[in-house]
Amino acid sequence: QDWRSRKKVEIFQYIFLKWTLVLLIGLSTGLVGFFNNIGVENIAGFKLLLTSNLMLDGKYFQAFAAFAGCNVFFATCAAALCAFIAPAAAGSGIPEVKAYLNGIDAHSILAPSTLLVKIFGSILGVSAGFVVGKEGPMVHTGACIANLLGQGGSRKYHLTWKWLKYFKNDRDRRDLITCGAAAGVAAAFRAPVGGVLFALEEIASWWRSALLWRTFFTTAIVAMVLRSLIQFCRGGNCGLFGQGGLIMFDVNSGVSNYNTIDVLALIFIGVLGGLLGSLYNYLVDKVLRTYAVINERGPAFKILLVMSVSILTSCCSYGLPWFAGCIPCPVGLEEKCPTIGRSGNYKNFQCPAGHYNDLASLFLNTNDDAIRNLFSSNNSNEFHISTLLIFFAGVYCLGIITYGIAIPSGLFIPVILAGASYGRIFGRALGSLSNLNVGLFSLLGAASFLGGTMRMTVSICVILLELTNNLLMLPLVMLVLLISKTVADIFNKGVYDQIVKMKGLPFLEAHAEPFMRNLVAGDVCSGPLLSFSGVEKVGNIVHALKYTRHNGFPVIDEPPFSETPELCGLVLRSHLLVLLNGKKFTKQRVLSASNILSRFHAFDFAKPGSGKGLKFEDLVITEEEMEMYIDLHPITNTSPYTVVETMSLAKAAILFRQLGLRHLCVVPKKTGRAPIVGILTRHDFMHEHISNLYPHLVPHK
Amino acid sequence: QDWRSRKKVEIFQYIFLKWTLVLLIGLSTGLVGFFNNIGVENIAGFKLLLTSNLMLDGKYFQAFAAFAGCNVFFATCAAALCAFIAPAAAGSGIPEVKAYLNGIDAHSILAPSTLLVKIFGSILGVSAGFVVGKEGPMVHTGACIANLLGQGGSRKYHLTWKWLKYFKNDRDRRDLITCGAAAGVAAAFRAPVGGVLFALEEIASWWRSALLWRTFFTTAIVAMVLRSLIQFCRGGNCGLFGQGGLIMFDVNSGVSNYNTIDVLALIFIGVLGGLLGSLYNYLVDKVLRTYAVINERGPAFKILLVMSVSILTSCCSYGLPWFAGCIPCPVGLEEKCPTIGRSGNYKNFQCPAGHYNDLASLFLNTNDDAIRNLFSSNNSNEFHISTLLIFFAGVYCLGIITYGIAIPSGLFIPVILAGASYGRIFGRALGSLSNLNVGLFSLLGAASFLGGTMRMTVSICVILLELTNNLLMLPLVMLVLLISKTVADIFNKGVYDQIVKMKGLPFLEAHAEPFMRNLVAGDVCSGPLLSFSGVEKVGNIVHALKYTRHNGFPVIDEPPFSETPELCGLVLRSHLLVLLNGKKFTKQRVLSASNILSRFHAFDFAKPGSGKGLKFEDLVITEEEMEMYIDLHPITNTSPYTVVETMSLAKAAILFRQLGLRHLCVVPKKTGRAPIVGILTRHDFMHEHISNLYPHLVPHK
Repeated sequence: QDWRSRKKVEIFQYIFLKWTLVLLIGLSTGLVGFFNNIGVENIAGFKLLLTSNLMLDGKYFQAFAAFAGCNVFFATCAAALCAFIAPAAAGSGIPEVKAYLNGIDAHSILAPSTLLVKIFGSILGVSAGFVVGKEGPMVHTGACIANLLGQGGSRKYHLTWKWLKYFKNDRDRRDLITCGAAAGVAAAFRAPVGGVLFALEEIASWWRSALLWRTFFTTAIVAMVLRSLIQFCRGGNCGLFGQGGLIMFDVNSGVSNYNTIDVLALIFIGVLGGLLGSLYNYLVDKVLRTYAVINERGPAFKILLVMSVSILTSCCSYGLPWFAGCIPCPVGLEEKCPTIGRSGNYKNFQCPAGHYNDLASLFLNTNDDAIRNLFSSNNSNEFHISTLLIFFAGVYCLGIITYGIAIPSGLFIPVILAGASYGRIFGRALGSLSNLNVGLFSLLGAASFLGGTMRMTVSICVILLELTNNLLMLPLVMLVLLISKTVADIFNKGVYDQIVKMKGLPFLEAHAEPFMRNLVAGDVCSGPLLSFSGVEKVGNIVHALKYTRHNGFPVIDEPPFSETPELCGLVLRSHLLVLLNGKKFTKQRVLSASNILSRFHAFDFAKPGSGKGLKFEDLVITEEEMEMYIDLHPITNTSPYTVVETMSLAKAAILFRQLGLRHLCVVPKKTGRAPIVGILTRHDFMHEHISNLYPHLVPHK
Repeated sequence: QDWRSRKKVEIFQYIFLKWTLVLLIGLSTGLVGFFNNIGVENIAGFKLLLTSNLMLDGKYFQAFAAFAGCNVFFATCAAALCAFIAPAAAGSGIPEVKAYLNGIDAHSILAPSTLLVKIFGSILGVSAGFVVGKEGPMVHTGACIANLLGQGGSRKYHLTWKWLKYFKNDRDRRDLITCGAAAGVAAAFRAPVGGVLFALEEIASWWRSALLWRTFFTTAIVAMVLRSLIQFCRGGNCGLFGQGGLIMFDVNSGVSNYNTIDVLALIFIGVLGGLLGSLYNYLVDKVLRTYAVINERGPAFKILLVMSVSILTSCCSYGLPWFAGCIPCPVGLEEKCPTIGRSGNYKNFQCPAGHYNDLASLFLNTNDDAIRNLFSSNNSNEFHISTLLIFFAGVYCLGIITYGIAIPSGLFIPVILAGASYGRIFGRALGSLSNLNVGLFSLLGAASFLGGTMRMTVSICVILLELTNNLLMLPLVMLVLLISKTVADIFNKGVYDQIVKMKGLPFLEAHAEPFMRNLVAGDVCSGPLLSFSGVEKVGNIVHALKYTRHNGFPVIDEPPFSETPELCGLVLRSHLLVLLNGKKFTKQRVLSASNILSRFHAFDFAKPGSGKGLKFEDLVITEEEMEMYIDLHPITNTSPYTVVETMSLAKAAILFRQLGLRHLCVVPKKTGRAPIVGILTRHDFMHEHISNLYPHLVPHK
């Protein structure tokens, strides 16, 4: 409600709080990101140490049992958390956050329980050795943190704070959540600029210049928190926490001059990335639809699915390296070879001393370390082409079947792993024909596959540059990304858009569809319209609230309050509930605005937090009260946005989307009819809705 | 006009052309950027060589004469170009491009003549030794190139191409110009990601996701063009073109752990940058207002002003180094010391062999080289504190008095120079108390001063990182930028916003002013409204076009064509002119739409290029024709955006701004009156307009 302007002190409170909140979001997201990393590194590190120690003693079967046992145990815990406590925490979370910021208030996406499950589920899931990342979940976590802080605790748990009333509206909450998502990316990749760009390019539907400035501040805080915590850990205070956490890969190959063959290779990698990426999206979509059927049957099925995927993954990780031969350690290395411990480039596995198993170095490692190994540029013959091929095939398939099971699972890491392995294959195949390093080829492969699946450009580019800390590769990465995105866009949409669509979320695109040009706003207005008089009988309102699910009702002034019936404005369901709950009814049909206003404070009508606020069931209205009247004017928004019924639907859609509306009143062109024709909502602009009404006009998809 | 949908082949033509154009913009901007650099390096290099050779022979007076003579000559050429051919080319150009993309069609901002003068004027101006940069002008140049390509040559010079008809509309042109501006930044700083972010943060008023992708492509092309051309020049094919062009500074000091003193120093630098930056903006504003008075008197005064500033600059550059003492060359250097030639860290000046003059190394160099010297981290005692103080004072003052004279002049370089020098002073003063390098302090100083004047955050940060190729400094740069921007925002607005305001351009802010909440749309609608009937007498239209300067007229259907008077839509001045020129008049008052449509092609109504298209004076209407009628329906936009007169002005302003409208129809709330109350245009939302109408409501600024 805009109808009360604020005092100076309130404006100060507001600005101060907004910056404090942003600061807190940065701090907590940084802490959570760090905690995630420590958790994964320690749990997975323990598991890998156990396995490799058993293998050193030659107890191969026990080693497998320990390895698979740990994996299944962690996986089951994660799945149980997801299935029983917060089903919304499964998956990447990026599509959900994207949909939320598009204006879709899906239930429990950002609830505190989701946050908790997301954090612990993600740690357990990644530790369980799945081919999943913790990056997508970090974004969701950041958004949850922002939501939790912004609403001042949860009303459900009776933790709330008075000052935070200012943030109980859509706009401020959206801003905070955008900051949270950016902080999540920044914490996941240690990429502050990349986080801002990611939020801008992929997450946010509405962007304001002020937001750039605010997200930037948040990600800067995250970067500083992480930096100081890592400094703290260097002293060995964080258990097994090693280099692997908080990935920062050094691809230090100074890019020398590249020749024509290199450019051709780049183009080829780009095209390949586009093709593989769109195929990946297609398969992920199919698998998700299959899994959706299984998951619907109940928590037990969800957990069973997770367990079977976990066993399959363990078999691959432990079984496939047996097919790879032992390679003698190269001489003159600074690193230890073979590495006995937890991570490292040269895993001993079953090999004799002085030899290493290259496939085990990729499979029997945390995903972060595997990526580091793939990106490493010191020893270009470190991995056999056959090894890389097996690894690529394994990761590609496992990535597809893993996404969609009931654990928090990010898509970034599987995609980077697969991309980096085919990039490195390519680099090895070219050999000395190319001036570029195999590590660089891995990076370019990862870029191309990221471009092919996620279809982002600038943000991926910047994130990769921040990850590898080498700006000179910029033009090469840009080129590869552009090609792979262009190729993949021919076949299908980006993976996040696909998931949003598959989940049936009514996502509003930024542009209008061409067929909307042939329709006018009046054509798609739905059904018989319910409207209230300026002073309405309580019974009518209760009835309307009970039997419809509309969130907005037009209010029409009728004689004797005006000469002719005219549109007074729009009233929201939630405000009606608050008003009815206040019980300021009158016996007669009279204006009683001042009376009502004195009773309420403006913030009583503010949007509640994650809870649904006042529910219809909470209302207690007596029979007698049902016959009384109430003046709706005080809670009516008297200047709703309107369009004439003959307005082109395309133009109405752009208006609706650009201004971020929830209701758009359609008024008649001719005078002398009812003063409102209908109300357009988000659903009226959906492809499915229009194609039901006008099947001949809308192209099939 | 949206009223004809396109055929498949046309859509293909459109997409193909759009990408081709973007490619061409990237290529040409890259080439122009390179040409600029070669020009500056060779001309300024020749001048500096001449001067230093004369000095080596001890002919100090002749050296000064040659130096000052060259400077004045180049300056006069640049000023003459600006004053006589394209006055719009003076200044940075960034505010103008920003205003253009906000929807202000100021005359000749992007004309081909402006482009030419901008390129050559900028080369001459920078070569003349002014404290100006070529970066701002590069942005303007990129935008001009985009405009020129997008409109398919200039109609004025009869160069045009049929396919380009698709780009004769506001939206596509705006997209192309945004790409051009991004390409300009990318070419100026060799910062492709920075260019995209700069366009997003500072230049563009409307941003779409598709645009990110397109600007990114453009800047990638620019980066590749520049890279290959520099490779070509390494062979020595480009005259005196050396390292100085296409700045890329290596601040290779690995950032070690910083301590508390460092952080305090950073905060201090940030605050100082904010204070100095806002003072700078204030002084630039004052000086610009003074210069505006002088410049209005005619070209001769403009040139005289340029000449006097040039002489003053020459005196400073040549005179001040005499006050600095000679410093013995440090031993064990890889570079030659003193450097006799054109550029270098250790300028000989008047000193004996084995000594160098540190102030001359800054003043008697191109600006790019001076920045490189300030950023250099090899020898922390290279410059005396007193030297740096003199240089800072000189550059700060010269920067203020130089901006605003009639040459193309960028603000980036003066700001970076001044910032880097006080940063370095600070680094020297701290000495061994700090772990950070003096070169790094220079960089942070530059960042703080940039943040204090221009108030951008992410884009400056990324540009600086791309310039120095060192990502590890990211958190430090971010912190400094945030502090300086916050401090400076207390005092005044960013320098570009100030200039836009000073030039009186009606720039629409993204947010509504608070006082607009207390007004409704009907309150600010201006004056008696002129409207046409659906079928209107030619004489009335001609009269209206002649005696008003309105660009849009409402069309009202009256009986007998409809039952009651109702709003049919909006018709644009330019379309009316085309229609009248077609002379499809009828004797009677009848509908003749099909007749008219057959006569015109949709693209006849397309927005013309830089020219004004058909002018009113070109119309020849006989007395007899004046009495005839014409059907306006075919050219009427039948679904204009409308607001009810009781709509809050703040909401109307947001609608107007977000959708990028030029006209917004205000319709009455009550029926039974004229079907339109008025039309809101950009000017009706301006602070000045409203404060004239309602002085008591609007706070004074």
